[in-house]
Amino acid sequence: MRIAVDILGGDHAPQEILKGVALALQKDFSVAELLLVGPKEVAEKFFATEGIHTIPEIIHTDVFIGGEEKPVEGLRSKPTASISLAVGAVREGHAEGLVAMGNTGATVAAATMGMGMLEGIRRPGIAVQLRGDKGSFLLLDAGANPAPKAKHLFHYGLMGEAFARDIFNIPKPRLALLNIGGEASKGSPLLKEAHGLLANSDCEFIGNIEGNEIFFGKADVVVADGFAGNMVLKVVEGFAEFLSHRAQKLGESNQEISNSLTKILGASEFSDVGGAILLGVKGTVIIGHGRSRANAVLSALQGAREEIRKDVNQHIQENISAHSKEPSVDPS
Amino acid sequence: MRIAVDILGGDHAPQEILKGVALALQKDFSVAELLLVGPKEVAEKFFATEGIHTIPEIIHTDVFIGGEEKPVEGLRSKPTASISLAVGAVREGHAEGLVAMGNTGATVAAATMGMGMLEGIRRPGIAVQLRGDKGSFLLLDAGANPAPKAKHLFHYGLMGEAFARDIFNIPKPRLALLNIGGEASKGSPLLKEAHGLLANSDCEFIGNIEGNEIFFGKADVVVADGFAGNMVLKVVEGFAEFLSHRAQKLGESNQEISNSLTKILGASEFSDVGGAILLGVKGTVIIGHGRSRANAVLSALQGAREEIRKDVNQHIQENISAHSKEPSVDPS
Repeated sequence: MRIAVDILGGDHAPQEILKGVALALQKDFSVAELLLVGPKEVAEKFFATEGIHTIPEIIHTDVFIGGEEKPVEGLRSKPTASISLAVGAVREGHAEGLVAMGNTGATVAAATMGMGMLEGIRRPGIAVQLRGDKGSFLLLDAGANPAPKAKHLFHYGLMGEAFARDIFNIPKPRLALLNIGGEASKGSPLLKEAHGLLANSDCEFIGNIEGNEIFFGKADVVVADGFAGNMVLKVVEGFAEFLSHRAQKLGESNQEISNSLTKILGASEFSDVGGAILLGVKGTVIIGHGRSRANAVLSALQGAREEIRKDVNQHIQENISAHSKEPSVDPS
Repeated sequence: MRIAVDILGGDHAPQEILKGVALALQKDFSVAELLLVGPKEVAEKFFATEGIHTIPEIIHTDVFIGGEEKPVEGLRSKPTASISLAVGAVREGHAEGLVAMGNTGATVAAATMGMGMLEGIRRPGIAVQLRGDKGSFLLLDAGANPAPKAKHLFHYGLMGEAFARDIFNIPKPRLALLNIGGEASKGSPLLKEAHGLLANSDCEFIGNIEGNEIFFGKADVVVADGFAGNMVLKVVEGFAEFLSHRAQKLGESNQEISNSLTKILGASEFSDVGGAILLGVKGTVIIGHGRSRANAVLSALQGAREEIRKDVNQHIQENISAHSKEPSVDPS
């Protein structure tokens, strides 16, 4: 088991990414489990300063795709960008997984084109693990596919189901479809069609779920079109940040209030993992927030390792093929 | 100036609605400014018990449309439902505005069909006033029109602009379009077209806005398609409720934490008014949350009165007609 780490992606790269790697080595990762992609000398110097003498293999590059760059253009014009080399390492079998904190679009595009899709899956989905009143739940797609077809949504349900079985240890995860009303007749033609596909499968499909219900443990997997899923994620992020600001302001006169909110909200408390999980590609990919610090890098590495050890992709593949006997719709 | 009040709508009707009316009378509303619609004897008995002897006029009915009823079916089968009679009172000129805490769909449908649309406007929009880091902002549409055309979105911008001028006292409100990316090229064909209409108008259009940015004072009016707008509203509601639960749990061992969050979050703190504002119809309509208690009813009455006094609908009408010289698109 080995995970490639793009040490040039993210607002605080390479420093915080390298610190995250150091944390992982101090914890229970062996050097053989990590493969770094980025500036060799910088990394070697960092580890030397930290007093770490046995270090992971490094694929050298100084080239990276910035957070604001257009993904496809960036990938085309920079064939030796760190994210491309990291994806290449997975494709060539030098690693099973990849952790990157850089440009999300570039990571999704590089992984999709470079690793290819799992058999039968047309579009990858971004899954995020959120924390609710009764524990974690998975929301997907959170933005990889903003204009999906119904069959893509159905596949997101099947991918989420396999993930939730392995990672949440739920034998029969409950699936729901994000919508603005509870009845099957609600929403766009797309959502009605996806509702039909999920309802006619053998999945534990509980029907539509509204945005206010997702935090209360009704569903383990919330299937969303990429537009709505991304909206939910961003709104939760923004609202949490807004509350933190408000608490800080109140906290200027009352430290207790500030501390309390920090406790309730926490920096990473509404999201369990160090990043978003790209599902559907031939390889394990975790895409961290650009703002990630060392601890988030460690979480992402742990998340990727768990996914690989539990064979999530194998189980996604099995779940998809078990449901592929259903009459095939539009193959696009 | 008179406001019709549906005293049969809402989870706590008629008791809490009547209490809200009593609060308004104790404050600075005169009996002549209110017109109640609902069970006459119940209302009279309530006011007698409260020691209020001069009471508003009451249009009697015992019939109402429940929160779970299908709007159009309910309206058709119950012509004397309180919401229909309240709408009728506005149509006939007995009141300029309407406050209702019942079935949202039924209120929107009754008002749209019963009052008619302001000239040039095809679809009503639901606006909600949310509180952010730098004060209030308006989000519309929050669910009246889940599958709008670009021109509807443009009109929501114009309605929101007029509203923000009058109610927020901002001479040139900043408008933004809710999307999942900042660039003009982002999002669905619908959003791109709406972006074009707003960008080519004389509005202060700042472009696309993402869900995490809306709380930070970049825009005074956030224009959204009804699906996304409703999603944002529900997610904020649900996330706030989830945090309250979490605070309560933590608060069992630490009362300070529970109190702090209540202070930061507040029951009505992320939404300023007692309800959502229906814009585009010939009349002022505020639709409260079904859970509304007396204080929310009072807020809704104050909100409706301010809208009427400031002639918001007149200004919406002027704004729409000032922009109607632009080449007309599809008239549907």
